Amino acid sequence: MASIISVNLPENSYSIHINAGGLNNIGEKASHLAIGKKILVVSNPEIFDYYGQITIDSLQNQGFEVNYHLIPAGENYKNLESIAQIYDTALKCRLERNSTLMALGGGVVGDMTGFAAATWLRGINFVQIPTSLLAMVDASVGGKTGVNHPQGKNLIGAFYQPKLVLIDPSVLKTLPEREFRAGMAEVIKYGVIWDKNLFEALESAQSIDSLNNFDEALLNDILTRSCQAKADVVGQDEKESGIRAILNYGHTIGHAIESLTNYETFVHGEAVAIGMVAAGRVAVKMGLWTENEAHRQDELIAKTGLPTTIPHYLKVEEIIDHLQMDKKVKDGKVRFILPEAIGKVQICDRISSEILSETLSVLID
Amino acid sequence: MASIISVNLPENSYSIHINAGGLNNIGEKASHLAIGKKILVVSNPEIFDYYGQITIDSLQNQGFEVNYHLIPAGENYKNLESIAQIYDTALKCRLERNSTLMALGGGVVGDMTGFAAATWLRGINFVQIPTSLLAMVDASVGGKTGVNHPQGKNLIGAFYQPKLVLIDPSVLKTLPEREFRAGMAEVIKYGVIWDKNLFEALESAQSIDSLNNFDEALLNDILTRSCQAKADVVGQDEKESGIRAILNYGHTIGHAIESLTNYETFVHGEAVAIGMVAAGRVAVKMGLWTENEAHRQDELIAKTGLPTTIPHYLKVEEIIDHLQMDKKVKDGKVRFILPEAIGKVQICDRISSEILSETLSVLID
Ligand SMILES: NC(=O)c1ccc[n+]([C@@H]2O[C@H](COP(=O)([O-])OP(=O)(O)OC[C@H]3O[C@@H](n4cnc5c(N)ncnc54)[C@H](O)[C@@H]3O)[C@@H](O)[C@H]2O)c1
Ligand SMILES: NC(=O)c1ccc[n+]([C@@H]2O[C@H](COP(=O)([O-])OP(=O)(O)OC[C@H]3O[C@@H](n4cnc5c(N)ncnc54)[C@H](O)[C@@H]3O)[C@@H](O)[C@H]2O)c1
Ligand SMILES: [Zn+2]
Ligand SMILES: [Zn+2]
Repeated sequence: MASIISVNLPENSYSIHINAGGLNNIGEKASHLAIGKKILVVSNPEIFDYYGQITIDSLQNQGFEVNYHLIPAGENYKNLESIAQIYDTALKCRLERNSTLMALGGGVVGDMTGFAAATWLRGINFVQIPTSLLAMVDASVGGKTGVNHPQGKNLIGAFYQPKLVLIDPSVLKTLPEREFRAGMAEVIKYGVIWDKNLFEALESAQSIDSLNNFDEALLNDILTRSCQAKADVVGQDEKESGIRAILNYGHTIGHAIESLTNYETFVHGEAVAIGMVAAGRVAVKMGLWTENEAHRQDELIAKTGLPTTIPHYLKVEEIIDHLQMDKKVKDGKVRFILPEAIGKVQICDRISSEILSETLSVLID
Repeated sequence: MASIISVNLPENSYSIHINAGGLNNIGEKASHLAIGKKILVVSNPEIFDYYGQITIDSLQNQGFEVNYHLIPAGENYKNLESIAQIYDTALKCRLERNSTLMALGGGVVGDMTGFAAATWLRGINFVQIPTSLLAMVDASVGGKTGVNHPQGKNLIGAFYQPKLVLIDPSVLKTLPEREFRAGMAEVIKYGVIWDKNLFEALESAQSIDSLNNFDEALLNDILTRSCQAKADVVGQDEKESGIRAILNYGHTIGHAIESLTNYETFVHGEAVAIGMVAAGRVAVKMGLWTENEAHRQDELIAKTGLPTTIPHYLKVEEIIDHLQMDKKVKDGKVRFILPEAIGKVQICDRISSEILSETLSVLID
């Protein structure tokens, strides 16, 4: 089972290939791109252990000259120092303008490799092989690349499009289940903001809290629909000046919760899950969304094994204060993405602290 | 006297304003751009001493919220570390997506500020106020930004266009004369590769080896024609895949000479001057260019007070070896930009070491 999604941008269009077992043929796919012979694969030690050799073999079989560069796993290494180390390796391997940096990993590896590709020799080729569900459906689509500043996430970066994204769903078998569910939060997000069919496919599935419960067809379908949803939105707004904001559904409160728990209690997708529940309630309170549909969303989140409540040790006031500090605030009103129907959202600038406070109180554990 | 040049690119077109005394009105000019209220001016201590206050006053008078960041002068500071420091200041000043980084300085400040603008928050606004002749006619046009890697110049960077370039020729009065003449080498280059009228205007001028010998009209004319020449070339080839290579006229041998003298003996423009003399001789030897026109070029270079010969302590063989190591070589043949007529060049891949060797021998001091 395989599908191809075209990401159409004013410049630099490219495609996303979704293909179980596709990693075995990455060399052949790469050979169809107009790229030079040199490829530097960037990964982390764990992922490279699983999938490094197969990638390199496939590339070498097609005559590519392959080197690799490993960065320790984790968000802590997503910084300028790691980029400088990729540069050093790029120099040692004598990468040229038509050479390629290839990311083999989750969003951390993808974001860093993309940024290095954007800035080495003022931009060389970039290919993405996302290995986490989150990277497949989110980080690898849309051209955002970058690293963290000691004082803030993703402050340093560039918009830079890959030449190809290869998604091989079979690599998900080694992904920790908690990371899988975290990625599912973004999948559910696409269902709510963009694709009713995706939402309903998840509703009809017997059980979705573990990869083992997905058959190949369903997995292929949700990957395809999720990438398509993000590609559609990004295609309308490459540089994030308008509609792209809807991708932040669930993220406003999600970020506040992540940050207030020091990024230790929840992985990103879990915080987003709680954020979607909260945003849904706000939408209902504002009279935008039906109770019934909001409930269906919450059920789907719970079915995935994701949290739906705010831990008791967080206070409503500190969450609201955090939103105020954030850039998402204008004149004391917080900006939210709110559903009107499953598959359709609107951007709403006029959410008062009172409405927020009432909604959040109910969600505290 | 003032002129405006439009740089037309597929995306992100902008204009270059050439305007004596224009620095006094930078605030007003900036107020016509669609940019936010916050501006961070980047400069070096010396240039900031001369022109910092006037810039800041003018911006503040238009209601901009202005901060500044200084980097010590010199190519040695054009590195990732300096960029990290700009990021820190950008964070402290709470720059936002619609904020602006403004470069006030020569090519070093301009390249770094542009790169920081390209990569902070994935790209914020960038305005250039070039203060050296070289930065006015070359570095500030064309969107190349970046820094050096410890092992090579300009290896790290991005293509990123400014929202505005303001050239105020009156700031050249404080530029050291040697730097002025170095910039003149690039001006002469544009005459040879693109604009016969520019070349002839310089030929007719009484004396061009110092700013003092230029009247306002001539200075305005050469700035306008030079920027126009670069804008024309870049407009046809933004990402350097073809014709943009002609801007490297004189640079092949120029770079070899700079590098073999450890960047200590010659400033860039001086090495390019020698490189143009050499390239001219090669063109004559290849039967592409007339002796007479090549001679006119050499005279113009000499009239500017720029060197036309290779110092005696350099050996022809080491120069040729250096070219071979460089990327400009294909199958042992060196790639050159060669004049056919004043105002017209061609790219030539088939220059043998023999021809080079004969030409260079004659030029050794
Ligand atoms: N560029 C974008 O548009 C965008 C969008 C969303 C998130 N992001 C970024 O993505 C990052 C989060 O991505 P992530 O969730 O993939 O985190 P991650 O890259 O840290 O991966 C999560 C963990 O799973 C492991 N892993 C990944 N694939 C595996 C596999 N197939 N088998 C075994 N282990 C595997 C990783 O080693 C890591 O330990 C964040 O830095 C975030 O800022 C970027
Ligand atoms: N981006 C491009 O397309 C491009 C093109 C050519 C060169 N460059 C880069 O530009 C740099 C060289 O630029 P440069 O020659 O301007 O060097 P520079 O920026 O180092 O300036 C030269 C010297 O002149 C001083 N100076 C500049 N303006 C002055 C003024 N008005 N009054 C007094 N002093 C002044 C500076 O402080 C410095 O000491 C190199 O790093 C080169 O790589 C970039
Ligand atoms: Zn997310
Ligand atoms: Zn030059």
